[in-house]
Amino acid sequence: MEFTAQILDVLTDSVYGARIKIEDGVFKEIEPIKVEKDTKLDIEGLLVPGFIDAHIHIESSMLTPAQFARMAVMHGTTSVVCDPHEIANVCGIEGIDFMMENASKVPFNFYFAAPSCVPATPFETSGAILDSNDVEFLLKKDEIVALAEMMNFPGVINGDEEVLRKLELARKYNKPIDGHAPLISGKELDKYVEQYVFTDHECSSFTEAVVKKWKGVKIMVRDGSSAKNMEAIFDLSERKKFFENQNGFGLVPSEIMQRRIHSPIFDFIVSDDKHPDDLIKGHLNSSIKKAVDMGVDIIEAIKLVTLNPASHYNLKTGAIVRGAKADFVVVDNLVDFNIQKTYVGGQCVFDGENILFDAPQVSELNSINATKKTSKDFEINYDGDECEVNVIECYNGELITSKASANLKVEDGVVKADLDNDILKISVVERYGKNNIANAFIKGFGLKKGAIASSVAHDSHNIIVVGCDEELMARAVNKIIDNKGGFVIVDDESCESLSLPIAGLMSNEDAFEVSEKLTVLHKSAKKLGCELDSPFMTMAFMALLVIPSLKISDMGLFDGDSFEFIDVIKN
Amino acid sequence: MEFTAQILDVLTDSVYGARIKIEDGVFKEIEPIKVEKDTKLDIEGLLVPGFIDAHIHIESSMLTPAQFARMAVMHGTTSVVCDPHEIANVCGIEGIDFMMENASKVPFNFYFAAPSCVPATPFETSGAILDSNDVEFLLKKDEIVALAEMMNFPGVINGDEEVLRKLELARKYNKPIDGHAPLISGKELDKYVEQYVFTDHECSSFTEAVVKKWKGVKIMVRDGSSAKNMEAIFDLSERKKFFENQNGFGLVPSEIMQRRIHSPIFDFIVSDDKHPDDLIKGHLNSSIKKAVDMGVDIIEAIKLVTLNPASHYNLKTGAIVRGAKADFVVVDNLVDFNIQKTYVGGQCVFDGENILFDAPQVSELNSINATKKTSKDFEINYDGDECEVNVIECYNGELITSKASANLKVEDGVVKADLDNDILKISVVERYGKNNIANAFIKGFGLKKGAIASSVAHDSHNIIVVGCDEELMARAVNKIIDNKGGFVIVDDESCESLSLPIAGLMSNEDAFEVSEKLTVLHKSAKKLGCELDSPFMTMAFMALLVIPSLKISDMGLFDGDSFEFIDVIKN
Repeated sequence: MEFTAQILDVLTDSVYGARIKIEDGVFKEIEPIKVEKDTKLDIEGLLVPGFIDAHIHIESSMLTPAQFARMAVMHGTTSVVCDPHEIANVCGIEGIDFMMENASKVPFNFYFAAPSCVPATPFETSGAILDSNDVEFLLKKDEIVALAEMMNFPGVINGDEEVLRKLELARKYNKPIDGHAPLISGKELDKYVEQYVFTDHECSSFTEAVVKKWKGVKIMVRDGSSAKNMEAIFDLSERKKFFENQNGFGLVPSEIMQRRIHSPIFDFIVSDDKHPDDLIKGHLNSSIKKAVDMGVDIIEAIKLVTLNPASHYNLKTGAIVRGAKADFVVVDNLVDFNIQKTYVGGQCVFDGENILFDAPQVSELNSINATKKTSKDFEINYDGDECEVNVIECYNGELITSKASANLKVEDGVVKADLDNDILKISVVERYGKNNIANAFIKGFGLKKGAIASSVAHDSHNIIVVGCDEELMARAVNKIIDNKGGFVIVDDESCESLSLPIAGLMSNEDAFEVSEKLTVLHKSAKKLGCELDSPFMTMAFMALLVIPSLKISDMGLFDGDSFEFIDVIKN
Repeated sequence: MEFTAQILDVLTDSVYGARIKIEDGVFKEIEPIKVEKDTKLDIEGLLVPGFIDAHIHIESSMLTPAQFARMAVMHGTTSVVCDPHEIANVCGIEGIDFMMENASKVPFNFYFAAPSCVPATPFETSGAILDSNDVEFLLKKDEIVALAEMMNFPGVINGDEEVLRKLELARKYNKPIDGHAPLISGKELDKYVEQYVFTDHECSSFTEAVVKKWKGVKIMVRDGSSAKNMEAIFDLSERKKFFENQNGFGLVPSEIMQRRIHSPIFDFIVSDDKHPDDLIKGHLNSSIKKAVDMGVDIIEAIKLVTLNPASHYNLKTGAIVRGAKADFVVVDNLVDFNIQKTYVGGQCVFDGENILFDAPQVSELNSINATKKTSKDFEINYDGDECEVNVIECYNGELITSKASANLKVEDGVVKADLDNDILKISVVERYGKNNIANAFIKGFGLKKGAIASSVAHDSHNIIVVGCDEELMARAVNKIIDNKGGFVIVDDESCESLSLPIAGLMSNEDAFEVSEKLTVLHKSAKKLGCELDSPFMTMAFMALLVIPSLKISDMGLFDGDSFEFIDVIKN
């Protein structure tokens, strides 16, 4: 393949005309040519390097890797460094193998990170455990380019043996270590970074990001579906203030600092989680535009998703340069920045209208091993007329919860939900064969009738259900079991569902179909009285024990402040 | 060691006050502190990372590594990546060991590159040969951070087996490969870069540098004693023109390109060669100032000698950041940029007035194994009254020569120099035990009497001598042998010399003493009629066969265009 075009070179920040020869998926020759205003080139517009999402959990898109790739290339993404943390918690190495195998079937660069924290805590039942031997097995693979986010920062700081061994292995195999250290600072951060943890994607403010970067941590600015930190981190007024104040009282001439106002300061833009309804609208292309709207120089913004991740993870892509993989995007120009075509390894995969490859149909990867439930399984019993209970209070769009309490009526020995005060039942049903059930109460969902259930519940992905009564909760959970995973909404008359039969996390359908079903479910939830924008996402984080204050696992109600289980009924 | 100060952070381009704790030579804690205009800090001024010269041959300073370090720290240099190519040509591994051993005695970071081309060509006698096994022996060492400049680019391009093996070994041991490819472009450059040769310090024009960078080569801008390329490469008008023309005819808004005028575009500043009389005046500190005078942003210029080389060669220095070696410089501010103090590994090595460490006295490393010469050894015989000869024509400050010719008188069967027409004798005397002598003629030195000789002659460093008659040439060479190397000027009355008894390349004295003696020699040469600014340097390059057009080795007169020996006397 040989053609002429103008390219953006992110090594020199220049645009030049070139005759480009691609062989075996690689830029074989790029020879500068003279271009005049009226020179006719084979490809019009501007070639920019294909975008790289340096940190994403593909499972959050509810799509298979191949279906994810089909959406991503529409937006100019040609590579991801993905952490199959969710499926690893469900199916272990087998799940990771599934992701790699499926990924290998499409013209898209999937680089993988070895999940470092499976299970996330010892306070829940997961489908698999990855010990340091498993991590070593993964790190040896060529497809694995990093040790994935080390969420167990207390383990790092306190020198947990297994944790340190995993970090040591990453160094042994010369694979960078990704971090995850929300709000950690000072000597604790020092200890974390001392273990060669060199990225962080958990910064939620400009100041947190700067302080971490001063420690040598590379900052991933997160612009995803669950966490949207870009607004805070790229805020233009913060950047102005920063450079105005950073002249050391005259040690540096202020024009030198002023000149930097368009600098992004930080290292990468990543999505972390990207839900299907967001993914159909845009990916890193939208993030670049958003950064530019916040005053970041567009060429610098492009580097955050091309050159920077490629050099950090040693990927042979990220620049249009001889010897690199021929991954590139044709945009109209750097102002409108519309994606006109996308090429992966020299192959056109999106022509501006059509996605030029198919995703293979995959067989289900059933991961649900739970017996059918009855309303009895969801009962909380109490000997008396009324009792005081601990209640999880959740908030729209937030991962954190607070600890509330309520007085509830007891009927026939069963503590009942209180719909008038929005105190609903919440349960986590173990789905890996142990059949544990933990029952508790939650405030914030606002359901007036029915129940909603899901097999997506971070990080162990047991079945989680919120409902107005035990009967409907049992129906919802049983439907999840029938569907081999997914989302379900039931009330007395109807039952809506989205099946996620691949590990209870992913669909076999494409992004448009999944989004459409999700929209239907959201509407149904609203009809039942639910006040949350994204009830399934909010519910999914109710089992994420590492985020305070009150959460629930299949083992019981968990106090994230004291890091121990507590009783539902107060004494 | 614990103190407060303001630091320049090259990761965020910011200046901030911090409490800094250094332990075991490493930044242990750097905690931001609030600084007001009148806050009293322990260290005034601004801390910037210590400078790194990413490519230098220490031998060119005529100083031992330890003596070099004493000068360098005065100018804020705390690290070098040095290629002991000269001493390797003279003494092989033993010479490299000497350099490492001597370097280890002082508080300064000497990183070494393994010489890749010893000898430089098969057309000369060197003191040693480093084959791929020797290179592997070196690459295994921790002190070796790279494979040094691969000067044999024809060998790379033509796939010479030994050359490819050396490159392969560098990849095996994960050490970057330095390049040396003057004026190479197009497919030849592609082939060179294909072998993972990723730096080049031979660019002599802005365009050459840009074209190489478009190929993915990192550019070392050279600001040394022999080669001064910075003026061409950082030329402000070139940079303006470049960014004005690089907007793809409107694909990129012109303000985005205009904003880049202060960008250095390229990657490193290096000195390559630094003579003692230059070194006492300045090093990378002067280069930074010079770059700033040419419109380069000072913080970006600082990165060229700190962050960039450190990350390229994986050195744990180059930024004032927790975990890095505590190498830093105190400057007054970023305008005057005066070096006030220098610290290496947390130790103050220069306090603004005094260098705070000594260089160890070293025993001589005699490398001269040549018998004493008589005038007869330098005779060129011819049977006749007159003959036509090939003449090397040299130019002030240039490495290249041209091919001239002259008609010379023959007296008693000996072809004589012609002082009126500046046709002098030049000879190369093998000094490693073989006792070859090659005699020829040279134009351009302008000596009216006497002879000058040197044991510094690239790259094999045999004894080279230029003189008005054979008798004086023999005296000059014999004095070199007595001195175990160095520079000598003789005439009928006097004999001046600078001894370089360490491998015939380096002195045991300090930079000031060596410079002073060099100044005396330069004056003496002028008195004898020599018109060259740096006669010993010009002479040293007359034996560098790889630079055209006519050169001389101990094996004879060498035509650098046809790459073969030619006769002195024309037929």
